Amino acid sequence: MVKALLFDVFGSLVDWRSSVARQMAPYTAEGAAFADAWRGRYQPSMEAVRSGQRPFVPLDTLHRESLDATLADFAIDEDEAQRREMTLFWHRLDAWEDVAEGLASLGRKFILSPHSNGNVRLMVDLARHNDWRWDAIMGAETTGHYKPQPESYRRAAELLMLAPEECAMVAAHNADLDAARACGFKTFFIERPTEHGPGQTTDLAPAPGCDRAAENLRALAALLT
Amino acid sequence: MVKALLFDVFGSLVDWRSSVARQMAPYTAEGAAFADAWRGRYQPSMEAVRSGQRPFVPLDTLHRESLDATLADFAIDEDEAQRREMTLFWHRLDAWEDVAEGLASLGRKFILSPHSNGNVRLMVDLARHNDWRWDAIMGAETTGHYKPQPESYRRAAELLMLAPEECAMVAAHNADLDAARACGFKTFFIERPTEHGPGQTTDLAPAPGCDRAAENLRALAALLT
Repeated sequence: MVKALLFDVFGSLVDWRSSVARQMAPYTAEGAAFADAWRGRYQPSMEAVRSGQRPFVPLDTLHRESLDATLADFAIDEDEAQRREMTLFWHRLDAWEDVAEGLASLGRKFILSPHSNGNVRLMVDLARHNDWRWDAIMGAETTGHYKPQPESYRRAAELLMLAPEECAMVAAHNADLDAARACGFKTFFIERPTEHGPGQTTDLAPAPGCDRAAENLRALAALLT
Repeated sequence: MVKALLFDVFGSLVDWRSSVARQMAPYTAEGAAFADAWRGRYQPSMEAVRSGQRPFVPLDTLHRESLDATLADFAIDEDEAQRREMTLFWHRLDAWEDVAEGLASLGRKFILSPHSNGNVRLMVDLARHNDWRWDAIMGAETTGHYKPQPESYRRAAELLMLAPEECAMVAAHNADLDAARACGFKTFFIERPTEHGPGQTTDLAPAPGCDRAAENLRALAALLT
């Protein structure tokens, strides 16, 4: 019955923490801490949009504002050109090792799209960097709403001309899956137990109500195809 | 300098006339005439949206309304389910023979996206039907504006985070290219001298101002890569 798989990207498909840390290495010895601090500003920055305090802006804009604050916290001073380049570090995140193979397999049976809070060009660049093939790009900039706002899921289904129950959200984050389920989507959990580093305590297992759970995308493809 | 190629689809990449005629064959002996009549309602139907007479609706909605009128003109009576199925004939149009190879080659150097008046799911289905790989799906439903409205081209460039001159519109239709050029896009003309059948008199050659012209997509790829 499921015809399209919609994917969370940061954490679920790409290892943002290691990838940002690696790209920050020339600027700080505390790359992982910098990545955590930068990412720590992610939810609050989107909340300003979700709550209506500010109009919608793409994630690159929020990433740049959060970068400026994080650089200040780490007492790192870089010029405008370098800050623009650093903002694009999020366009060059490496996928977990199972993703390219898993997507290639799943794509033979399902319509595949990211449904990320990242903007369209960020998704385009990640797909090229990691050799993924998407059918379309859904998500915040396409729908005008940041997850987990229900409008984002509903609009994605509408653009794909599918009923909500014909769409499955695939993510390593229960909050994302819970919001998708509340909109009528099927929900498939995948494990990313080191997204936040070796001591991760959250999202180690699916919340009740998930339709499927798999260790990774290769295992999910084996379940579904 | 060009980083993304945006493609017109109906006529430029797919042979809508033969493909619709073929799919209409079980219902009428006049398949090509039916395709011409159905397509003849295309520009007027979009003009109602462009002019603000009605709010934006996706092309599938306009195609269905035009189908109902065309069926009446041809004295063909079909039920609701069959009319829905016929509307999807536009999701299964066959590409001209050079397109899959040309896109595969161009995709190694450029970001590729359709920039069509067709809706997102229509583009998804055409890509799957013809084995194309897009980086993103621009066009009317993504931008909220039907070509040749300038907002459609400008918004596509914005979503790709590119300056207009970093985008090239690729089409077999001079009106589309003229509108893109007026927005600052580069313009690449390809020849489709039988889009409208053997007696075609329009768009046989590029209008002045086109940056490149090629016989087809394979030839364009040879020019650009």
